[in-house]
Amino acid sequence: MNVPGATVGCVGGGQLGRMLGEAAAPLGVDVVVLDPSSPPPAAPVVSDHVQAEFDDEDAMRELAERCDVLTYEIELADPDALERVEKETGTPVHPKPETLRKIEDKLGQNDLLRDAGVPMPEYRRVDSVEDLRDALDVLGYPAMLKARRGGYDGRGNVAVESPDDVERAWSEIAGPALVEEFVEYDRELAVMVADGGDERRSYAVTETVHREEILRESVSPARTTEEVRRQAVDVAEAVVDELPGRGVFGVEMFEVEGRVLYNEVAPRPHNSGHWTIEGAATSQFEQHLRAILDLPLGAAETRGPTVTANILGDVDEPREADLQGVGNLLASSRAHLHWYGKREVRPLRKMGHLTLSSEDADRDELLERAREVRDRLSWG
Amino acid sequence: MNVPGATVGCVGGGQLGRMLGEAAAPLGVDVVVLDPSSPPPAAPVVSDHVQAEFDDEDAMRELAERCDVLTYEIELADPDALERVEKETGTPVHPKPETLRKIEDKLGQNDLLRDAGVPMPEYRRVDSVEDLRDALDVLGYPAMLKARRGGYDGRGNVAVESPDDVERAWSEIAGPALVEEFVEYDRELAVMVADGGDERRSYAVTETVHREEILRESVSPARTTEEVRRQAVDVAEAVVDELPGRGVFGVEMFEVEGRVLYNEVAPRPHNSGHWTIEGAATSQFEQHLRAILDLPLGAAETRGPTVTANILGDVDEPREADLQGVGNLLASSRAHLHWYGKREVRPLRKMGHLTLSSEDADRDELLERAREVRDRLSWG
Repeated sequence: MNVPGATVGCVGGGQLGRMLGEAAAPLGVDVVVLDPSSPPPAAPVVSDHVQAEFDDEDAMRELAERCDVLTYEIELADPDALERVEKETGTPVHPKPETLRKIEDKLGQNDLLRDAGVPMPEYRRVDSVEDLRDALDVLGYPAMLKARRGGYDGRGNVAVESPDDVERAWSEIAGPALVEEFVEYDRELAVMVADGGDERRSYAVTETVHREEILRESVSPARTTEEVRRQAVDVAEAVVDELPGRGVFGVEMFEVEGRVLYNEVAPRPHNSGHWTIEGAATSQFEQHLRAILDLPLGAAETRGPTVTANILGDVDEPREADLQGVGNLLASSRAHLHWYGKREVRPLRKMGHLTLSSEDADRDELLERAREVRDRLSWG
Repeated sequence: MNVPGATVGCVGGGQLGRMLGEAAAPLGVDVVVLDPSSPPPAAPVVSDHVQAEFDDEDAMRELAERCDVLTYEIELADPDALERVEKETGTPVHPKPETLRKIEDKLGQNDLLRDAGVPMPEYRRVDSVEDLRDALDVLGYPAMLKARRGGYDGRGNVAVESPDDVERAWSEIAGPALVEEFVEYDRELAVMVADGGDERRSYAVTETVHREEILRESVSPARTTEEVRRQAVDVAEAVVDELPGRGVFGVEMFEVEGRVLYNEVAPRPHNSGHWTIEGAATSQFEQHLRAILDLPLGAAETRGPTVTANILGDVDEPREADLQGVGNLLASSRAHLHWYGKREVRPLRKMGHLTLSSEDADRDELLERAREVRDRLSWG
């Protein structure tokens, strides 16, 4: 595939598609996104937009026919449809649709990775309230009940605090599920791994801070021991080894008393890797493009301590997005804004993020400042 | 001006407009360019394109009416027209059109800056071949005859080597000109200065390497003494002090036996500042946007030694641009491509640049590698 000149099709035109487009322009790569919204967040920075639902196979085929390689920024893409489109059009899809199939069922995903030796919390398959009760007799309380499919940013996850909670928890899922022991973690960690086919590059381990199961801040490199960081990279690479196709993968993990346990994986650029735009030698978005276009991977080295803070929709009701306080943000030394271009702000919607990156800063200080700056933003 | 949400109009949609567009997206800023070509290089990364000549005042007015602030990426923009448009539409223009007026005549520019105490090579006004001969009796040979208007990338500049050369040199310019003593410089230097109105930030001094008066490579920070670097920043800031309006300015200088002499200024992002994309805390393009939008300036600190190499049209005849060898470029550690999206390659046309930036690299080694990688590119 010739660069400059190649065209990448991307199923999904949200913020990940937008930042992919931002990274594509300097390479002379055109990006065309498929997305149902009009216009999607990616629109201003990509060459074109095919307006269609994510599962519209005809639209996917149209997209594939215009592109040199197809990728996706959402896991909801249908692997069977992508595989048929790949076969019919001859346009390669990366990561492989097979990867989506391996992970779309959280139970099958866990089984696959556990069999490959990836350490993870204990879990049990659950198909009924009786299964759930039996499983909790073994795993104990509290525990996390998870729908096998469609979970995203905490949706489809329900905590079960005590035996009294079982009925209520089950009624919220009421379908194929698994229940996982509750892990009292010291830290959540994430590693972005780039798989370039014949080479692999892992970024520094990132510490992620979630609230209501939504990522709030990231700190890179993670404030933990060298040994834990080593384990985290090993776990992340073992996970990616099981998932066919080129691209970047975000692997999320727990740190528990010096041990690292697998949590989940995204076969695409990931929120926990946004720090790489300023903080690494090659951003996860340029890296994803290099990987799927079969170009040499870029250096993944860290340029300096880097913190990101998500800008979420801190509103009660959806309304037109009008962010206030950016002057204060930009006045903070080494602070950068990444706005996602969404016209409507909704409760907890990811609207943007900010990054503080410095060659010689203290990570605690960066994190404190990032939170301060973020918390002074408001919606007009 | 609210960010996100502001719209910037830019007269000119070449590579500078393109990189301005790349920097605008993360800030949630829309860019609309005015450019006669269809499509101009900036098209894929900006919101819209007004197709018109650079001096089309109606088109400028249309652009201004759609924008919160107007800027330009070419000095050829007509200051009188810009000033009328600014007055009629109320849309501010930055840097001020007055700045273009002060520099469009190279003689007036030199007089202004010399009177302000800026050190520069000796020069004389020349309106005839007799003036030229008289001036050279004083300045000596060789010298540089320069058209007062319209010079660009060496066009409008003619070397006068000896008295035998005077007639030929004059016949090439044959109009309002100045002649400048030939400076045997040790190095060419450039400083990008951001003027934010109430604050000013200067980037590290860059060493520039020209051949046939076209920039070939840049090395940042410049490989010279601390004292020369200090002088260069002083000269650059003294120049920018004379030029009204906010924005980034590129000031080019000569280093001659430990002294710094002014050469020329561009009231816009400049080729010698492309290294800031990877090599500085805030790129010159984001900085220009912050300045013209009256936002706080970003940190201008250097992130590490950084070298750029221009990718020029190394062809005999214009033809469709098909760059070969990018795989080798991207395989070079810490190398990044910046492609300008021009469809046709022409002799010496600026088609893109590459950057090598590293926190701890040796600048000689980076420069050697950048040249090697650039020289292995070819046109298919």
